[in-house]
Amino acid sequence: MDKRIQEAVDLFQDVMIYGTERVIKSVDHPLWKEYSPEQIQLLKLISKEKRVTSARLAVMQAVHKSAISSRIKKLLQKEVIQIVETTDRREKLLELTDKGQTVLAELDKVLTDYLEKLMSENIADEEIEQFLAIFRKLKTIIKMDGV
Amino acid sequence: MDKRIQEAVDLFQDVMIYGTERVIKSVDHPLWKEYSPEQIQLLKLISKEKRVTSARLAVMQAVHKSAISSRIKKLLQKEVIQIVETTDRREKLLELTDKGQTVLAELDKVLTDYLEKLMSENIADEEIEQFLAIFRKLKTIIKMDGV
Repeated sequence: MDKRIQEAVDLFQDVMIYGTERVIKSVDHPLWKEYSPEQIQLLKLISKEKRVTSARLAVMQAVHKSAISSRIKKLLQKEVIQIVETTDRREKLLELTDKGQTVLAELDKVLTDYLEKLMSENIADEEIEQFLAIFRKLKTIIKMDGV
Repeated sequence: MDKRIQEAVDLFQDVMIYGTERVIKSVDHPLWKEYSPEQIQLLKLISKEKRVTSARLAVMQAVHKSAISSRIKKLLQKEVIQIVETTDRREKLLELTDKGQTVLAELDKVLTDYLEKLMSENIADEEIEQFLAIFRKLKTIIKMDGV
């Protein structure tokens, strides 16, 4: 078992690292020039969490609070995120603006179109089904025990 | 097809984001406190590339050169990486030291042990085989066309 898990971890990391690099190099769209990969990931995180503090975003991107602050500042300037008005001033919550949702949907579409083109010639239908089944399960396992 | 690729991308991102968060929270080992996730990823990248410039590392981590410089400085201070002595002074190549290789092997082991425990109860043998088959293929696809 041990060796296969090790190989699985290595492969996942390879696909994550080289896949990101390849997408960045290959996708030709003005939005992918305007937003850095880290900014795109941040938009994605905020979208997933709906409303989220910068402290939690720092944990999720596994970076220092100061790094998150400067990334958030840039996204606020681009008006793709906004601070939610709440009665509690200590806890600032962030959410996507309408513009942010449109931008993220467009970024997602460009990425999906590219990957669909890349995969359709090389990956069998059955393999996509297997991928989905395994990853639905992995997601459930990860989310167990209250993370 | 479109919807399934979109789901596959979403699932991959979820597992990447929440999986990293879960591992960071769950793995209890002094090395995981001493090295930040970004530093660990950087060690991994240098290990994969054997010898690599900081410019290429910046591209691979998709961050600005200044961010890479400060991360590299910290790893040099911890003596886990070193600058390769070459005749060409313009191009500085980085590589792991012996200490770096030991540290990375230990980090890998801790991660694999944790994931093995997490997966063994939830993932069937057959699914691991499917995962490996699909990811070997994905890696090949990504590496095609000279990336």
